[in-house]
Amino acid sequence: MSTSHCRVTFQPTGRAVSVLSGTTILEAAARAGLVIDTPCGGAGTCGKCRVRITQGVSDPGEADRTVFNEQELENGWRLACRSPVLKNMVLEVPPSSLFGGGHQIVDSGTDNGPGTLDPAVRKIHVELPAPTLEDDIPDLLRLERAIGSFSVDLDRLRRVPKQLRAQAFQGTAVLSDHRLVDFEKGDTQARCFGVACDIGTTTMVASLLDLCNGQELGVVSRMNPQVVFGDDVVSRIHHAASCRHCLDELRNAVITEVAEMIKTLCADAGVQSRHVYEAVFAGNTTMQHLLCGVDPTPLGELPFAPAYGRGLLLSSKDVGVPINPRGMVYVFPVIGGFVGGDTIAGMLVSEMDACSGPTLMVDVGTNGEIVLANGEELLAASAAAGPAFEGARISCGMRATRGAIEKVLLNDDVHLGVIGDTAPIGVCGSGIIDLVAGLLDRGIVSPEGRLLPPDELPDDLAPALAARVFLDKKGDTAFMLAQGEGMNQRTLALTQRDIREVQLGCGAIRAAINILLQKAGLDASDLSTVLIAGGFGSFIRRDKAQRLGLIPPGVDHRRIHYVGNASLAGARWALLSVEARRRAEELARRTHHVELSIDCDFQMAFAEAMIFPEGS
Amino acid sequence: MSTSHCRVTFQPTGRAVSVLSGTTILEAAARAGLVIDTPCGGAGTCGKCRVRITQGVSDPGEADRTVFNEQELENGWRLACRSPVLKNMVLEVPPSSLFGGGHQIVDSGTDNGPGTLDPAVRKIHVELPAPTLEDDIPDLLRLERAIGSFSVDLDRLRRVPKQLRAQAFQGTAVLSDHRLVDFEKGDTQARCFGVACDIGTTTMVASLLDLCNGQELGVVSRMNPQVVFGDDVVSRIHHAASCRHCLDELRNAVITEVAEMIKTLCADAGVQSRHVYEAVFAGNTTMQHLLCGVDPTPLGELPFAPAYGRGLLLSSKDVGVPINPRGMVYVFPVIGGFVGGDTIAGMLVSEMDACSGPTLMVDVGTNGEIVLANGEELLAASAAAGPAFEGARISCGMRATRGAIEKVLLNDDVHLGVIGDTAPIGVCGSGIIDLVAGLLDRGIVSPEGRLLPPDELPDDLAPALAARVFLDKKGDTAFMLAQGEGMNQRTLALTQRDIREVQLGCGAIRAAINILLQKAGLDASDLSTVLIAGGFGSFIRRDKAQRLGLIPPGVDHRRIHYVGNASLAGARWALLSVEARRRAEELARRTHHVELSIDCDFQMAFAEAMIFPEGS
Repeated sequence: MSTSHCRVTFQPTGRAVSVLSGTTILEAAARAGLVIDTPCGGAGTCGKCRVRITQGVSDPGEADRTVFNEQELENGWRLACRSPVLKNMVLEVPPSSLFGGGHQIVDSGTDNGPGTLDPAVRKIHVELPAPTLEDDIPDLLRLERAIGSFSVDLDRLRRVPKQLRAQAFQGTAVLSDHRLVDFEKGDTQARCFGVACDIGTTTMVASLLDLCNGQELGVVSRMNPQVVFGDDVVSRIHHAASCRHCLDELRNAVITEVAEMIKTLCADAGVQSRHVYEAVFAGNTTMQHLLCGVDPTPLGELPFAPAYGRGLLLSSKDVGVPINPRGMVYVFPVIGGFVGGDTIAGMLVSEMDACSGPTLMVDVGTNGEIVLANGEELLAASAAAGPAFEGARISCGMRATRGAIEKVLLNDDVHLGVIGDTAPIGVCGSGIIDLVAGLLDRGIVSPEGRLLPPDELPDDLAPALAARVFLDKKGDTAFMLAQGEGMNQRTLALTQRDIREVQLGCGAIRAAINILLQKAGLDASDLSTVLIAGGFGSFIRRDKAQRLGLIPPGVDHRRIHYVGNASLAGARWALLSVEARRRAEELARRTHHVELSIDCDFQMAFAEAMIFPEGS
Repeated sequence: MSTSHCRVTFQPTGRAVSVLSGTTILEAAARAGLVIDTPCGGAGTCGKCRVRITQGVSDPGEADRTVFNEQELENGWRLACRSPVLKNMVLEVPPSSLFGGGHQIVDSGTDNGPGTLDPAVRKIHVELPAPTLEDDIPDLLRLERAIGSFSVDLDRLRRVPKQLRAQAFQGTAVLSDHRLVDFEKGDTQARCFGVACDIGTTTMVASLLDLCNGQELGVVSRMNPQVVFGDDVVSRIHHAASCRHCLDELRNAVITEVAEMIKTLCADAGVQSRHVYEAVFAGNTTMQHLLCGVDPTPLGELPFAPAYGRGLLLSSKDVGVPINPRGMVYVFPVIGGFVGGDTIAGMLVSEMDACSGPTLMVDVGTNGEIVLANGEELLAASAAAGPAFEGARISCGMRATRGAIEKVLLNDDVHLGVIGDTAPIGVCGSGIIDLVAGLLDRGIVSPEGRLLPPDELPDDLAPALAARVFLDKKGDTAFMLAQGEGMNQRTLALTQRDIREVQLGCGAIRAAINILLQKAGLDASDLSTVLIAGGFGSFIRRDKAQRLGLIPPGVDHRRIHYVGNASLAGARWALLSVEARRRAEELARRTHHVELSIDCDFQMAFAEAMIFPEGS
């Protein structure tokens, strides 16, 4: 009973995403990691989210007609927030439609960009006058005279003067943060690249960027090979401590995969790895520790203090990343044991500290991260939401891969969206949220989280829905999602226990939000903006997340925006701009880490948050 | 006919030196590398050069009686400039008697010191609160909170958090230029050392300093093992280029010897080498290049451009110096191919840029370096003086070692001072200068440098002197210094050719001085101060150097001071003070390098300077 899927391709990057027919272009863009600006919250009134459909154009809607003239409509201009995707389409997103406008846009394709293009790595081609008796200054000062001051290590000190002379004092100097990385033959200024990398617990994504213009040359994604040592950060931390070489084993696993990604990116783009001079990494605190080979044991024990806080600038050779051996690696700063570089990346790219009015960012996952910006005040907390949102500990749960139910609509009956448009084999996080929200709306689940047995169901419930409620072998109530058919299909049903898991997860995040609001003396209605961060967040539907209390129910949906996979975007920004890097460091230092486990109010807030919010 | 020698020991350092009986304490101090302040130029009138003789006290002179009261004279107080050394003595030099007074004195024993004690290396003992849920900031930020911000490399990132936890968050942080070098167990603040090293072409001297108080714990000196590859810098430069491994061979030779010196210093002082965190090196440009393994080939070819100009901050591990493996090595900046770190060291410790009035510094050697400070203007030049002053290319020349005639007095006859108070086997630089000056004064050598034959000698010449002039087998005039006696003694005589060598050397230095004065629009009589630098300089007698024109004859001798072995002193200053290091860099950058070989006036100046000055 799955609805059909449409492929949407965004230009100029060529990013493509497959979405359920009827999804708005705005949401499809969010899933592709493009954050389109919607000051009106998707109400179709501000006219900010304009995109041009070049293939698969649909009829304009009422909102389109008020914003665009006939010629524009003819040319395919539509409002992303009001236009549903009904067939495969190709569309162009102008830079002005991306969130964070007003800055100089570096690369209109990937994200709004870090404002200005000022990478730490610079290449300068020089043609120096050869030394003469009249002009006999030392070789390195001769180079400095042309490119500004720099420092050298012993290796460069020995080589660069030789290179200068062998190349008749002509060539291209490579500087990284005022350190002389290399002196190359000829004019190689156009060959200056960097890699931005999101090190997720499950998935790693790497992006190759041209540092001359900020353009993305390729993206690859791989499973984090550490998953063989456990799905979540806690099992990785335990594994690291389980033997003498286990930390190395974890580090080598991720470094080897990173190396493979970089090799693939370079090969595909026709780039030599020696022309890649910097790699930037963002991830959660544990992933960043493991990447550096830093013992994560304290992250698994009270009080979960990380080894480092500031961002790290390390030698690429020391870290073991196969870029230019004298290149650098920048690893994001962290705020706390469970509020890491990925959260800072989200804060950075959403520019939440610069938002006018109180802003809340929520990253839903096994570990939920919540950040509240209120003027100068920045508060961050983590909430152990459990693995329900990643499909774990749910009887029919699964990750968001092919065959996973990722969208559930409850009206007269259940309508499923399945990834890959195939027969469903399980349900993933966004599907679970949809389902529980729907069950609450229909009165099948009570606000206290009780899945009502057949005899207690509301009288006005659609018969097809009522027919899906049954008592399992143990006598517990369950809700049938899909009936098993054929040999390889099992029956998919949501149990009371599953709902409790969701309830716990939602309660933890909601309680954390409430504590931060309380600390800032704010009410949910005071929030100007709510940002949904994290890769998973892009797949959550705002109304459903509000229905479960993952986002405060009192917030107008027009104030809710998607930040997308901010970890990769933040790494990109820090690669393209030292100013963005400086801001990331500043955000990390300014943010007060609120440890909820010792907060007197948290247990009470948690208990209260276990009750699902009132429906609208 | 050699005069007897006396041993003079200077407290509180314990430095000892052996001098000819009758040498002033002032000159003995200069030979020990102690620069005593003599504003009156040694006339015995200013009372600035006061020292206290504790053993071997002699009768006070007239000048002593005008400056000191009876009690002071009784206690051994004397004026260094007026008191001859007549027996072995031990004496104390109060800090106020050292050149450059007015600053806070770091170490009253060695030299006037860099002003303030602010070494790049700092140790801070901390007792941090352990992390709690209320105070869960990252380990390295916890440390920063106590000691200020720092950077870490990957190795420290991995180890320091572990060390913090293993040591209950107590221990001693070692910082070098805001880089975390180490975190040590317990309170090791008192164990913080550094090594200052003068890398001479012939001799290397290393000094172990306590960075807590600036005190010198020991000094060792070794022959530069590179001498087996040639005596002078030019032969070293040629050797470096003579095979693929020759540069490495030269580098290894000096590094191995430096390592031995450091081991000896540490063993003698009971210091662990891991508590030595920094080594500072000063030497001429070629020696500094070889120490770093930087190809010196361009220093041997026109236009003699060095590889680097700024001072170098390198990893001790990379350089191969056996101090703490995460320690640093600082190598002095250089001005030109033949004006190196040793010259900058001399400029630094003499504070010549801060002298009131035009100041000239002259370092006499195979390569003479001349620096002129005139207000904001700093000019430096090098002059190829040839090896005469080091005893080479002189028929009976030798280095200043045992058996070398180091002092020559001509009155009714010749009186010799021989190093080691033994029978003479040759004559070294200071002896040659004495001798030629004496021969000029007596009219045995003409102003044009002609050694007059017996029949042209002045009529009033003392008969014993006249008897020493003879014609050798080739018919050339020669002057007999010492008659060979017994089996192992050869006849020592100075030939016409020897005098030409001295004349060339003096002419080159005098011409360079004249060109710099001319560029600054000055006359020699405008000079407020003349500084004699270099280890060899301490052994030159001012009046004799003026007689030969090595120092402008027009300058009142009270304006002439000894700087001593400034290379070692400068390295000490840079080790003890980042401010001194900054000043060294500034001096290097501010100084204009005058290349004499292209100066139109130089050839003329050189020709003129070949005529010895008029006698007084």
